[in-house]
Amino acid sequence: MLLHLSTWQEVETYLEHSRGIIFPIGSTEQHGPTGLIGTDAICAEAIAHGVGDATQALVAPTIQVGMALHHTAFPGSISLRPSTMILLIRDYLTSLAKAGFHKFFFINGHGGNVATLKAAFSETYAHLAEIGIPHSHLIQCQVSNWYMGSSVYKLAKELYGDQEGSHATPSEVALTQYVYPASIKHAPLSEAVSKDHRIYSAVDFRQRYPDGRMGSNPALATPEHGQQFYQLAVEEMSEAYLKFLAAA
Amino acid sequence: MLLHLSTWQEVETYLEHSRGIIFPIGSTEQHGPTGLIGTDAICAEAIAHGVGDATQALVAPTIQVGMALHHTAFPGSISLRPSTMILLIRDYLTSLAKAGFHKFFFINGHGGNVATLKAAFSETYAHLAEIGIPHSHLIQCQVSNWYMGSSVYKLAKELYGDQEGSHATPSEVALTQYVYPASIKHAPLSEAVSKDHRIYSAVDFRQRYPDGRMGSNPALATPEHGQQFYQLAVEEMSEAYLKFLAAA
Amino acid sequence: MLLHLSTWQEVETYLEHSRGIIFPIGSTEQHGPTGLIGTDAICAEAIAHGVGDATQALVAPTIQVGMALHHTAFPGSISLRPSTMILLIRDYLTSLAKAGFHKFFFINGHGGNVATLKAAFSETYAHLAEIGIPHSHLIQCQVSNWYMGSSVYKLAKELYGDQEGSHATPSEVALTQYVYPASIKHAPLSEAVSKDHRIYSAVDFRQRYPDGRMGSNPALATPEHGQQFYQLAVEEMSEAYLKFLAAA
Amino acid sequence: MLLHLSTWQEVETYLEHSRGIIFPIGSTEQHGPTGLIGTDAICAEAIAHGVGDATQALVAPTIQVGMALHHTAFPGSISLRPSTMILLIRDYLTSLAKAGFHKFFFINGHGGNVATLKAAFSETYAHLAEIGIPHSHLIQCQVSNWYMGSSVYKLAKELYGDQEGSHATPSEVALTQYVYPASIKHAPLSEAVSKDHRIYSAVDFRQRYPDGRMGSNPALATPEHGQQFYQLAVEEMSEAYLKFLAAA
Amino acid sequence: MLLHLSTWQEVETYLEHSRGIIFPIGSTEQHGPTGLIGTDAICAEAIAHGVGDATQALVAPTIQVGMALHHTAFPGSISLRPSTMILLIRDYLTSLAKAGFHKFFFINGHGGNVATLKAAFSETYAHLAEIGIPHSHLIQCQVSNWYMGSSVYKLAKELYGDQEGSHATPSEVALTQYVYPASIKHAPLSEAVSKDHRIYSAVDFRQRYPDGRMGSNPALATPEHGQQFYQLAVEEMSEAYLKFLAAA
Amino acid sequence: MLLHLSTWQEVETYLEHSRGIIFPIGSTEQHGPTGLIGTDAICAEAIAHGVGDATQALVAPTIQVGMALHHTAFPGSISLRPSTMILLIRDYLTSLAKAGFHKFFFINGHGGNVATLKAAFSETYAHLAEIGIPHSHLIQCQVSNWYMGSSVYKLAKELYGDQEGSHATPSEVALTQYVYPASIKHAPLSEAVSKDHRIYSAVDFRQRYPDGRMGSNPALATPEHGQQFYQLAVEEMSEAYLKFLAAA
Repeated sequence: MLLHLSTWQEVETYLEHSRGIIFPIGSTEQHGPTGLIGTDAICAEAIAHGVGDATQALVAPTIQVGMALHHTAFPGSISLRPSTMILLIRDYLTSLAKAGFHKFFFINGHGGNVATLKAAFSETYAHLAEIGIPHSHLIQCQVSNWYMGSSVYKLAKELYGDQEGSHATPSEVALTQYVYPASIKHAPLSEAVSKDHRIYSAVDFRQRYPDGRMGSNPALATPEHGQQFYQLAVEEMSEAYLKFLAAA
Repeated sequence: MLLHLSTWQEVETYLEHSRGIIFPIGSTEQHGPTGLIGTDAICAEAIAHGVGDATQALVAPTIQVGMALHHTAFPGSISLRPSTMILLIRDYLTSLAKAGFHKFFFINGHGGNVATLKAAFSETYAHLAEIGIPHSHLIQCQVSNWYMGSSVYKLAKELYGDQEGSHATPSEVALTQYVYPASIKHAPLSEAVSKDHRIYSAVDFRQRYPDGRMGSNPALATPEHGQQFYQLAVEEMSEAYLKFLAAA
Repeated sequence: MLLHLSTWQEVETYLEHSRGIIFPIGSTEQHGPTGLIGTDAICAEAIAHGVGDATQALVAPTIQVGMALHHTAFPGSISLRPSTMILLIRDYLTSLAKAGFHKFFFINGHGGNVATLKAAFSETYAHLAEIGIPHSHLIQCQVSNWYMGSSVYKLAKELYGDQEGSHATPSEVALTQYVYPASIKHAPLSEAVSKDHRIYSAVDFRQRYPDGRMGSNPALATPEHGQQFYQLAVEEMSEAYLKFLAAA
Repeated sequence: MLLHLSTWQEVETYLEHSRGIIFPIGSTEQHGPTGLIGTDAICAEAIAHGVGDATQALVAPTIQVGMALHHTAFPGSISLRPSTMILLIRDYLTSLAKAGFHKFFFINGHGGNVATLKAAFSETYAHLAEIGIPHSHLIQCQVSNWYMGSSVYKLAKELYGDQEGSHATPSEVALTQYVYPASIKHAPLSEAVSKDHRIYSAVDFRQRYPDGRMGSNPALATPEHGQQFYQLAVEEMSEAYLKFLAAA
Repeated sequence: MLLHLSTWQEVETYLEHSRGIIFPIGSTEQHGPTGLIGTDAICAEAIAHGVGDATQALVAPTIQVGMALHHTAFPGSISLRPSTMILLIRDYLTSLAKAGFHKFFFINGHGGNVATLKAAFSETYAHLAEIGIPHSHLIQCQVSNWYMGSSVYKLAKELYGDQEGSHATPSEVALTQYVYPASIKHAPLSEAVSKDHRIYSAVDFRQRYPDGRMGSNPALATPEHGQQFYQLAVEEMSEAYLKFLAAA
Repeated sequence: MLLHLSTWQEVETYLEHSRGIIFPIGSTEQHGPTGLIGTDAICAEAIAHGVGDATQALVAPTIQVGMALHHTAFPGSISLRPSTMILLIRDYLTSLAKAGFHKFFFINGHGGNVATLKAAFSETYAHLAEIGIPHSHLIQCQVSNWYMGSSVYKLAKELYGDQEGSHATPSEVALTQYVYPASIKHAPLSEAVSKDHRIYSAVDFRQRYPDGRMGSNPALATPEHGQQFYQLAVEEMSEAYLKFLAAA
């Protein structure tokens, strides 16, 4: 059940039997010469929609721009500052908590979001208590990274070994190829790629990772791999969501 | 050309011949008993993608949550506060202005966004000058409301007269029916509907407009109307974008 | 009844029979070679005081600095950023809402204030609800631009035609001449004046409108015109205020 | 020379021979049963205009609302929060510093403003350096409280002894009586008045000082006293301004 | 009783008989060629711990970085902006006010903190009222500068006359020598030292006071003096704290 | 070399051969019935001072209050909000980056700080670039959790097995016992302790973990263990710091 394709009365009915909602969250940032700028959002959205189908959960619109300041020396990248993103999450959750939602499950496609998301959860709990939301102590947030699920991780290692890398990875590129086969990109990739993993400022990032990749070889990606990742991720994230929902 | 389906190198190439980018912006808010919560974002996105095709413009990911505080007494509505939205727009445009974009064209589907968007543009111009973006004086933003285009407005009047209303209108509902025919909703609509148009707080809004509609009769909408609105809006917005791009 | 010339006990008494208060809001910004920097505040204040007399309304001190970032490349202009102005309005209204005021009527003299004011109203409604002001759902704000009143607008067109322009207009200059006849300025005005109306950054504004005027010929202004504008505006704004006060 | 009655070209000319500007700053807050809510602003403005005449200085519009949170349990009081007031001062001074002003002299009528003003000066110096204003190291701000000038202080002691008190004082009331003789108020004043001087929250303030006065007997004020205070204050503040202007 | 060496259960017990807590607050900033960068924090902390012992008061961790923007052109200085420091104080006091603390006593070692601290107190009172802390009207804050105590001040004048100066003073240096005898520094001090006392931006400060001292001769300091200052300050601050605690 | 015990001239000299500085960061929060409220700060500070000695690094004053909102339902806990902490870190690093520091190494004692610290690093990189700090692209921040070092972790597992838990752990308590043997606390500890590890709001936390411990048995701690942890942590953190300093 997708929030943007529902009416408010359908949401009212939904709240009678569930207090949970799923937020796909990605990023709009460079993903190397062949990765789509929307990769993280595309992956998170596809998986979240799959989870929504599998678990009858309500899925909110995808947060398509996240914390990607370190990518902004590459054209086309867009980022919130952490301080802005905290306010955005606080505003989103305040709107929904007032309406009766308690359990916010973020399916995340971008490592750079995690720290700010967690900071935002803390900020939000305190905010909701201060403004006197009834039952504010029942509000719970969780972020789950689809690419860190154990079966997903295992498959990526099997298929790509250390060519998986840590940004513009073949696994995420594969998933976007499965979702948008018409947008599979071809571009020359240097064989050599930095095995570094450190991230500082945007200018430093571009110097350190000149074509945007971090240790990855996305040329290994195929749409078929993507489908496998998709299925494993939906399964794992569905399980995680249901566990989150059921827990006290 | 959709930003999220492009690579950074494609954006780099795009910037060699154009400095413009289009942002669809909508809202995630109740649209009466039969209108989709995503109505404003759906309309803005569909039209923006059409304009992108027609003008070879780059289209950024849709801003799906806007300024809808007055709708938040209806479940499922999500809103940024104006102060947060100003920061969001500032962050988005700062990322892109650094990369060389000059002309930001917002195709807007929600009246409630306009004031905050304009405030955000002013804030952003000053910010970009202060941080010393080269050529910051060339940065230009414009918001165009698809539903205010003269041919769109005329058609709505022809088809619906004063049953068009001002929120959850048949014209926007029709457009979503054209885009998502599988999500056409049916629900009883009271014949009587407030002809008021004043907007204050969320609680007041729900008292004033109990089912969420403002003077509208969305039961008049059809997917065929939606297609007509889509075509007129794409045409008008394309013209507006090209004029904006060409102007000094 | 002017707030700054009243005592708190007089305000307490006033609140027994009225919940309304009027805020004149202007700007401190260049108005071309012959327009006063305080033009917008002077006009709004004079009219608001007239409305206060006509309607027995309480009139707050004039907000003399507004959102005029685009004028700041001309010396003497002072501006709040939109984000600051939102906080200012929120603070003002919070102070007064706690004391029992419900109806805030802004008589505005500067087009550049409107977007930020409307954003501030939305921010304030949400803030007042969150901090638990009793009856926060009764709080209502309205902005009325004196120069947009139908009789004022009609007179400007009659007197000046398209030489009214859109900034440093003869109508507002006339009104300041009526209020401050000792400060009527004389300076050469080029016959040619840009008919443009677009507004972006401060640097761009000064390039686009080198002497500060936007399509206007303030040399047509006379104090006698000013008196006419004053009387029409007081009448229209009084009517608008009373209607606002009476409405649910 | 009053900024709001000047044109931008007059300001441009002024800047050729002076970099200084004077800001009157007051407050909009209860001043006991007979003191005007605008007392602090009225005094600061009258004196600042006198200083402007005496020294040929440019005088900006009066800041009429300051930091008066502790007075907000009395109706009619309006306050900025300190954090908002810091932003307001930063915005004002940034606008003017960009235009070439260096020396900002605040003639203050309200003790509660001093701490926040000083904090704002520090914030502003750092901000102007960060945004790269040329010669930002020449920017200087000073706040002078008219009621603390030695001759003013001495006269108040002579006339009123310890009935001067520390809020709603006869000296400031006298000054407003001189400026606005038509607004002299009469109301019963209890003989007993708290000699306390501590200030905490708004609710505590009203409990501690039930009619708003702090140890003062404003019934002693006369317009003739007011004229004396006015003259002494203009003299002292003029000297202080010229000294500030001349100093490295 | 030191907060950081207590358990939460000991704090719970403490709250049964006292609602007061002491905050030492200093700064991390240059103190001339021989003064320690931590001087202000060291002094405030030592005295606060002495006061805690003398009065059985709970002492919170020292705030070691304060408002020292004007010192930041000297390496090693660290400063909060006033706007950040206001938020910090608000957050600290909110945490403790929720737990039942009412009386916050700041023992301050740095003149530059005073304005921002007072602004922060005002901001905090309003915030605590808005979030509905029970008994928020009982919350009281006070800042006491140890170096302004009358006996301390008198001793400094006796020992150093006008060589006490106003920054990097022999009295505060002496106190640090008493606390940290192993860190007594020796460096050449020019005989001439500016007698100025004005403070503007960081760059201006370093030009005006090239070695960081303001009119002081810290070479006069001895650890024995430091001990005297310590004892007088503990006595005076203890008395001040107890008076604050006892007052309504 | 401790910053607070140094002079600015010593820092100037230090900068000639090193661009690195170490920040101990802890928290002020409940640590169960026997853990000190300052545990996290005490551990981080002791280790950081040891690392400073071992590596000749400059060590800044300890950040004693961090992100501990979830502990604030226990009296004595103090927390910054994430948004405040981001500003604090930005301000600290801006002061020092302007002075020439490049490498900021945070030795952290509190898991709850990590997300906000990382968010703050990102915010700071962007800020420093925007304000035009020379060589802003060389600025690097790293957070290292002393308790996550492999030898520390291994020892904790050996000594305590799963009684180590995840808050108020015997390892951190032991370290404080080594540092402050006079402050070893005794209090009854229930044998049963929640093995949960989830963290949401403050109220939820206290319900979930009634005495403040998370799965730990701090009764196992001894000062001798503390010394072992201290030595291992200093060794590991020294190595990590030197590696960070040496890396490009």
